[in-house]
Amino acid sequence: MIELHYWPTPNGWTCSIMLEECGLPYRMVPVNIGRGEQFTPEFVALINPHHKMPAIIDPQPLGGGEPMQISEAGAILVYLAGKTGRFLPTDSLARLQVLQWLMWQVGGLGPMTGQNSHFLQYASEKVPYAITRYGNELRRLYGVLDHQLGRTGSHVAGPDFSIADIAILPWIRMHNAQGIDLSAFAHIGRWYETVLARPGVQRGLALGRELRAPVLSEAAREALFGSGSGTQGLARQRWAAN
Amino acid sequence: MIELHYWPTPNGWTCSIMLEECGLPYRMVPVNIGRGEQFTPEFVALINPHHKMPAIIDPQPLGGGEPMQISEAGAILVYLAGKTGRFLPTDSLARLQVLQWLMWQVGGLGPMTGQNSHFLQYASEKVPYAITRYGNELRRLYGVLDHQLGRTGSHVAGPDFSIADIAILPWIRMHNAQGIDLSAFAHIGRWYETVLARPGVQRGLALGRELRAPVLSEAAREALFGSGSGTQGLARQRWAAN
Repeated sequence: MIELHYWPTPNGWTCSIMLEECGLPYRMVPVNIGRGEQFTPEFVALINPHHKMPAIIDPQPLGGGEPMQISEAGAILVYLAGKTGRFLPTDSLARLQVLQWLMWQVGGLGPMTGQNSHFLQYASEKVPYAITRYGNELRRLYGVLDHQLGRTGSHVAGPDFSIADIAILPWIRMHNAQGIDLSAFAHIGRWYETVLARPGVQRGLALGRELRAPVLSEAAREALFGSGSGTQGLARQRWAAN
Repeated sequence: MIELHYWPTPNGWTCSIMLEECGLPYRMVPVNIGRGEQFTPEFVALINPHHKMPAIIDPQPLGGGEPMQISEAGAILVYLAGKTGRFLPTDSLARLQVLQWLMWQVGGLGPMTGQNSHFLQYASEKVPYAITRYGNELRRLYGVLDHQLGRTGSHVAGPDFSIADIAILPWIRMHNAQGIDLSAFAHIGRWYETVLARPGVQRGLALGRELRAPVLSEAAREALFGSGSGTQGLARQRWAAN
């Protein structure tokens, strides 16, 4: 059974959605990136020397041989598509369309959403120059995608759902937190609703949802909020903002 | 003959090196990104809706059919490797190693060098937070690559030169301007010299070199520097720094 080293983030969801859409059995192993578990010597040696999740280990790899260790979400998508024959056409032209849009996500939408997110949500100081820079770049990228979805009228790389849609969807899902108003991108909005309605996508996005919110023991909850205390709401808000 | 829409930058060199290494005939069409030629309606409609060079048009595409328009350097590499059978193994395990390191460049080394470069060289104001952030991230990425090259003892994805080397080399070439001291990364240094010695790599890196430096007409040169004027050296230095 495939082992998925995972944390619920856009790159993680890319792989959980692909595994669910392909109906491949897998076992999820959490990698708490908030605690830096991707930097431990064991992780670097056995799972991924790039210090990143997601990574998969396939004990029955395509082509046979020893268990295979694969990292980089884009490479995992191409590998699983090859293994299952799903979501990456073999026809040369159609395949190339998918690969181009996959690369567009890997090299553009992904890293630029990451930078925008850092400066909007996580940076230890407010950096107006960077907030403007990445906000503008993200709106440009949304414009490119919207134009393409208007052109195809269906999925990102053509009429069929593909690994390009799987790679792009988790990043578009973050639009609110990125300060993007999706109503300005009608074609993206239409596509987003369609793709989000797929049961495999929903199962993939739900994987490890409980890991994102801190799970409090009864004792911790009592210590933090007290029972029936008037400060409960405020304390909850503070916790949620962490 | 393949048409290469190009400007001499790391992403551009990726494609010129690949074309040279494969010995494919091509015609270069300059896209002056400093003048924003990648945003013109003609470019977006006919060459690349992503607003980026490089892009290629192949009048005799793999698989036959209409001339094919391909963008995203990573996708161009995979396409040309498929067309020529060069630099991307067909064996499943070896192929996957190359794809993973290609994705590592497309999603990591490329965009992070781009951000570091922006804040070191081009930003209209000094932003210490961003300079620290991207400098640290770039050193982490160089560390990952150095570790891998120490492991293989030869090329990035294994014993053979591949599209992963072609994708990564142009970015490493910028190490001085990125504030990276290559002597701290011995395995990268060894690999860099080896790969840089390849004639195809040298021809690819030389393509359009004259486009980078402004070419002065005799009249402009006279107006700027005067003939035999004592300020000539200083004026030349100023020009070179632009």
